[in-house]
Amino acid sequence: MNSLRSPAMRTSNPSRPLCFRLFALSLPLFPSSRSPPSGRLPRSTAVGGTPPPRLCVRSCGSVTARPSSEVRKRRGGGRGGGGGPEPDEKLRALRELFSRPGIGIDAYVVPSQDAHQSEFIAECYTRRAYISGFTGSAGTAVVTKDKAALWTDGRYFLQAENQLNSSWILMRAGNLGVPTTSEWLNDVLAPGCRIGIDPFLFSSDAAEELKEAIAKKNHELVLLYNINLVDEVWKERPKSPTKPVRIHDLKFAGLDVASKLSFLRAEFVDAGASAIIISMLDEVAWLLNLRGNDVPHSPVVYAYLLVKTDTAELFVDSSKITPEVMDHLKNAGVELRPYDKILSEIENLVKQGGNLWLDTSSMNAAIVNTYKSACDNYLNKKSKARVQDYNGRSAMPSGVYRASPISLAKAVKNDAELQGMRNSHLRDAAALAHFWVWLEEEINRGAKLTEVEVADKLLEFRSMQDGFIDTSFDTISGSGANGAIIHYKPEPGSCSVLDVEKLFLLDSGAQYVDGTTDITRTVHFGEPTPRQKECFTRVLQGHIALDQAVFPENTPGFVLDAFARSSLWKIGLDYRHGTFHSLAACLFEILLRILSSTASWSFLAIGTGHGVGAALNVHEGPQSISFRYGNLTSLQKGMVVSNEPGYYEDHAFGIRIENLLTVVEMNTPNRFGGVGYLGFEKLTFVPIQMKMVDSALLSSAEINWLNDYHAQVWEKVSPLLDGSARQWLWDNTRPLPIQ
Amino acid sequence: MNSLRSPAMRTSNPSRPLCFRLFALSLPLFPSSRSPPSGRLPRSTAVGGTPPPRLCVRSCGSVTARPSSEVRKRRGGGRGGGGGPEPDEKLRALRELFSRPGIGIDAYVVPSQDAHQSEFIAECYTRRAYISGFTGSAGTAVVTKDKAALWTDGRYFLQAENQLNSSWILMRAGNLGVPTTSEWLNDVLAPGCRIGIDPFLFSSDAAEELKEAIAKKNHELVLLYNINLVDEVWKERPKSPTKPVRIHDLKFAGLDVASKLSFLRAEFVDAGASAIIISMLDEVAWLLNLRGNDVPHSPVVYAYLLVKTDTAELFVDSSKITPEVMDHLKNAGVELRPYDKILSEIENLVKQGGNLWLDTSSMNAAIVNTYKSACDNYLNKKSKARVQDYNGRSAMPSGVYRASPISLAKAVKNDAELQGMRNSHLRDAAALAHFWVWLEEEINRGAKLTEVEVADKLLEFRSMQDGFIDTSFDTISGSGANGAIIHYKPEPGSCSVLDVEKLFLLDSGAQYVDGTTDITRTVHFGEPTPRQKECFTRVLQGHIALDQAVFPENTPGFVLDAFARSSLWKIGLDYRHGTFHSLAACLFEILLRILSSTASWSFLAIGTGHGVGAALNVHEGPQSISFRYGNLTSLQKGMVVSNEPGYYEDHAFGIRIENLLTVVEMNTPNRFGGVGYLGFEKLTFVPIQMKMVDSALLSSAEINWLNDYHAQVWEKVSPLLDGSARQWLWDNTRPLPIQ
Repeated sequence: MNSLRSPAMRTSNPSRPLCFRLFALSLPLFPSSRSPPSGRLPRSTAVGGTPPPRLCVRSCGSVTARPSSEVRKRRGGGRGGGGGPEPDEKLRALRELFSRPGIGIDAYVVPSQDAHQSEFIAECYTRRAYISGFTGSAGTAVVTKDKAALWTDGRYFLQAENQLNSSWILMRAGNLGVPTTSEWLNDVLAPGCRIGIDPFLFSSDAAEELKEAIAKKNHELVLLYNINLVDEVWKERPKSPTKPVRIHDLKFAGLDVASKLSFLRAEFVDAGASAIIISMLDEVAWLLNLRGNDVPHSPVVYAYLLVKTDTAELFVDSSKITPEVMDHLKNAGVELRPYDKILSEIENLVKQGGNLWLDTSSMNAAIVNTYKSACDNYLNKKSKARVQDYNGRSAMPSGVYRASPISLAKAVKNDAELQGMRNSHLRDAAALAHFWVWLEEEINRGAKLTEVEVADKLLEFRSMQDGFIDTSFDTISGSGANGAIIHYKPEPGSCSVLDVEKLFLLDSGAQYVDGTTDITRTVHFGEPTPRQKECFTRVLQGHIALDQAVFPENTPGFVLDAFARSSLWKIGLDYRHGTFHSLAACLFEILLRILSSTASWSFLAIGTGHGVGAALNVHEGPQSISFRYGNLTSLQKGMVVSNEPGYYEDHAFGIRIENLLTVVEMNTPNRFGGVGYLGFEKLTFVPIQMKMVDSALLSSAEINWLNDYHAQVWEKVSPLLDGSARQWLWDNTRPLPIQ
Repeated sequence: MNSLRSPAMRTSNPSRPLCFRLFALSLPLFPSSRSPPSGRLPRSTAVGGTPPPRLCVRSCGSVTARPSSEVRKRRGGGRGGGGGPEPDEKLRALRELFSRPGIGIDAYVVPSQDAHQSEFIAECYTRRAYISGFTGSAGTAVVTKDKAALWTDGRYFLQAENQLNSSWILMRAGNLGVPTTSEWLNDVLAPGCRIGIDPFLFSSDAAEELKEAIAKKNHELVLLYNINLVDEVWKERPKSPTKPVRIHDLKFAGLDVASKLSFLRAEFVDAGASAIIISMLDEVAWLLNLRGNDVPHSPVVYAYLLVKTDTAELFVDSSKITPEVMDHLKNAGVELRPYDKILSEIENLVKQGGNLWLDTSSMNAAIVNTYKSACDNYLNKKSKARVQDYNGRSAMPSGVYRASPISLAKAVKNDAELQGMRNSHLRDAAALAHFWVWLEEEINRGAKLTEVEVADKLLEFRSMQDGFIDTSFDTISGSGANGAIIHYKPEPGSCSVLDVEKLFLLDSGAQYVDGTTDITRTVHFGEPTPRQKECFTRVLQGHIALDQAVFPENTPGFVLDAFARSSLWKIGLDYRHGTFHSLAACLFEILLRILSSTASWSFLAIGTGHGVGAALNVHEGPQSISFRYGNLTSLQKGMVVSNEPGYYEDHAFGIRIENLLTVVEMNTPNRFGGVGYLGFEKLTFVPIQMKMVDSALLSSAEINWLNDYHAQVWEKVSPLLDGSARQWLWDNTRPLPIQ
């Protein structure tokens, strides 16, 4: 699965924020968690002011592991479809709130995310989808007293046109002349307006950026801590997730919680911190060896974790915590706190003089600003009473604003995690063998199957495997031209029927108790054209070149990216993975960055590989293999990355060949420079369709690679199969003759 | 020839200065041109003050196209060897000047360069070599009232140890714990001292950086405009170069001066400039279609060029201008000015209200500060008299601080320039064929030839070719372990005799009237070991991979760098081209950059290719092919780059295979993304020694490349040869059998 569906994926390198900043103004990179207000009047503060304590959290629903068709039916009703009030009514109700005492705003910005920068979010947090009616994964809604506009990118223009009613202006982000949200606000509002946001839904960096951008017209950014205006008007808001949290078995985690906390606390010393607050849900899950069920596709639970030198506090809905999990946490010295007490605890921490480590690129503005305000208050009091109680610099709390150290620690898998990944990939491969033999038989007997039906059947085969939990993302099941839409999501009503005369691209993955998978195969059920074969073979050559790469330690992923493209380049082909659907869109982004004086071109978002969690998020940082040379994180032993070059011919076909790889140390005969040399071990073992390969284009080394891979597929996966699936595997792993 | 011998080479991209800045504090990146004062008392100004007008220029000597042995003999006497006063005496004399009226400094910094950031400089400007006795190409001398220290890098530690006397502290830049010049000054001087520099010898950026660094200890940077203290004490200072300037024929230049000036003036509009000052000597030469004889290896003349909207003024020693050149300049509307009138003319320009375009990364601090001071003075006067004569914003002079537009224009060669490059490369190849057949015969008959004798003989063969002018750099002639020293420079007294049992690396080039060459071949006269063959073959595979690369427009060179290393990486080998001789040195630089909060790792200086001028400097920017991913300049059609992967085994052998390439548009069957796809055309046609190739390692495509290359070598070069050289070419271009 391509990484750019994960706009919130983070990297730990210093130049990272550049590609996010612009989106911060035009596309959703911002998270949230909020409940409706409980009766009392909301208060607001401008950025930097003291936030009032937060109120209670209302329960929300979530979606996990249902067939795609069912999910979509359900969503159709709940997400601004036929069920709720008319869209205009929603806007009217929302605008009514603008003038309420304690609010007093002229515009309100509604981003896509939850409070944790999650890629997949619980339905109760899909506020942008509710208010606008547009259900695509990326978008920002902005409502003024008389206008409403929605920004989305090229993937979703058509969908947004269909879903937005006439009250809404569609802002085709990336098209020439289309302003960013802040540019538009500066344009349509008279100077000196108040623009409201839910500070939980914006990262601190994004909120600061927005604040600066609108300050050009003397607008004020108003952080509404106690109320989310969309929740206020959302009459049938889904319940918050309630499913219990489970322990991620030590045999899969490999390292106990106490050891992980020790590692983390050791990092405090270097950073000069006495506590750290963690909000990324996969970081919390990894650190505590817990897995949750709060959002689709990612086994995480909504929570914050505050780790101090001696204690740790988990802010979570305690109803999800079983006695077993409670013991597990107690053993590691972790105490429970209500999810909605995070801000008051941050204030307490300041009173204790704690230096809090905050990653402002991912931490929401509510927490960061609460901490900063509390520090300011504390220092003011202290300085007034300095003579009485001044006891040295160490007692003064101050923020440590750095990237989270957990991102890299989580990315570098230990042996147990890797073993879980290997095992789950073999079971996944067995499920895929069953699936492919079923599909080929169906097609051969002339069945008319839709893309969604095929995806649902795949889920069925996967769910029969031991330890299966969920899909790891929405299956991309694309026939013919749909395969060229990189982030294609088939919908029950509108999707295509699989065409025996066309290419079929299937990108899917699963969550298992022991690992996470993500695999793409492209097949033809009939006879591919010579052009399709040539393109497929060149994509395969790129896949092989990256798979076989050996490189010194300290090499960032982007250095390897050209290996995956070289064969396509020879005939003037290339691939873009990302949100830019046209050169014009790309140029627009370039222009914006020039105007904003950033030196990085890292946004050129043309990825070949992304990190993958171990029984965690299918997209994780900080590493990547991409044209985006802003990401300087080196590939390190134990990291997992996808290898997914492709070729996408608009309105015709798409090709992608994706395996997951883990970085391993190579036993090279030399170690020039005194460093180790690294390479990849394959995790994915599923046949590559040989009829797509033009073997005349392959070198003997490439043919050897293919034959060797298929021999391994047979050796590793056949013991898990019998009957027709085993026969299918045998048939599809026969060697090509060396020419 | 590897590019990192050119510390002053510039790129036009915004992240470039990072790798230069650090060196600015520790290693020589700064230029100069100055004469001794003519009697009157010198005045000094701190940065930003108004400089007094400059004084006359004393004549200096230069070195061109002499056999290496002769040059070295001459230098031995002239550069602080036996001839002059004792080093202590020099320091004593220098320090005496510190307290002179109008000087009043506590320390003086002497960098390596001339006033134009030249890579090769005239002898009269080798002030750092004179004052310290250390003659290596890179180094910075700092003299305080009681200490003297010299910084150089790993290439020169041994040489510096031998050449510095006991008055000097050797600062091994890059070794752990070794301070930069500014750190050292801050350490050894009491706070509030005055540190003097010759502002002509520092780029404006470097001077600003030094100023900021020493300000931490409240030191003041004192710009001594009218006096270079080393010149003052340099009793037998060589004369300045006097050889005449010649016209670079239009048939080689391809574009007349008027057209080039028109292009440049068109750039003014976009930049908001009304004039530009150019100080890079190759830019002046390229723009005016002139070539000079002032420095070794580069056909340039010491000059500044000031181009205004209607006129252009060349600041040069008029004795070098023949009547023919004078006509040539007049035709293009270029007037002559004395070289030493540049500062006063800059002041005049301000009085005329001109907005001057200055590239502060290369322009010396004397010119930049003179301009800034004059602008400040002008504005102060204007604002005092605003009511009387204020006539709008356009009359107010202000600087346009941007990269020079000439760098890129010069790098993209036109057809005539490329044809000159092609032709000169064939004549160079013919000279090399004569040379190699001579050398093999000498070795076969048992002659004991030194590395210097071999280099001299090569010069002899080259100088017999039509249009030969000079070597394009000091020949690197390295037998055995000397080949592993990337910037090895054999010296007559100490160099090795060529060993029939060892590898011999020969990196050399020439200046011809129509082009510039740079080629490396590595050969064995006896039987190479299997390891040598494997390393050579893997270097060759990297060379072939880069040569054969196809890539979309807008691709920076660093994207291709990994192609050149991939085959070496497979067995744990790599190469570093640059100044880092050890991992420790490299880590030290990393540390420094982390401390100075730079995000770029571009200094990791591990290059595969550099730009080459057309009958101009052998090293030019802005493009490069390098691990240094700070350089975002894309490779463009018409650019010339070297392709020189290598492998260097310390104390054993060095391997490098270098051809020059020009970037060409490929006729690909597709143009994905609406862009052109680029590749390379070879300029260099000299056989690669087949006995070094382990053909079992090569793919059939690689064997085809080699056979095809040798077929082209025979076809293109054999018409220029007869007799034994022709036979040698025939013998060395026979195809390998395809296995």
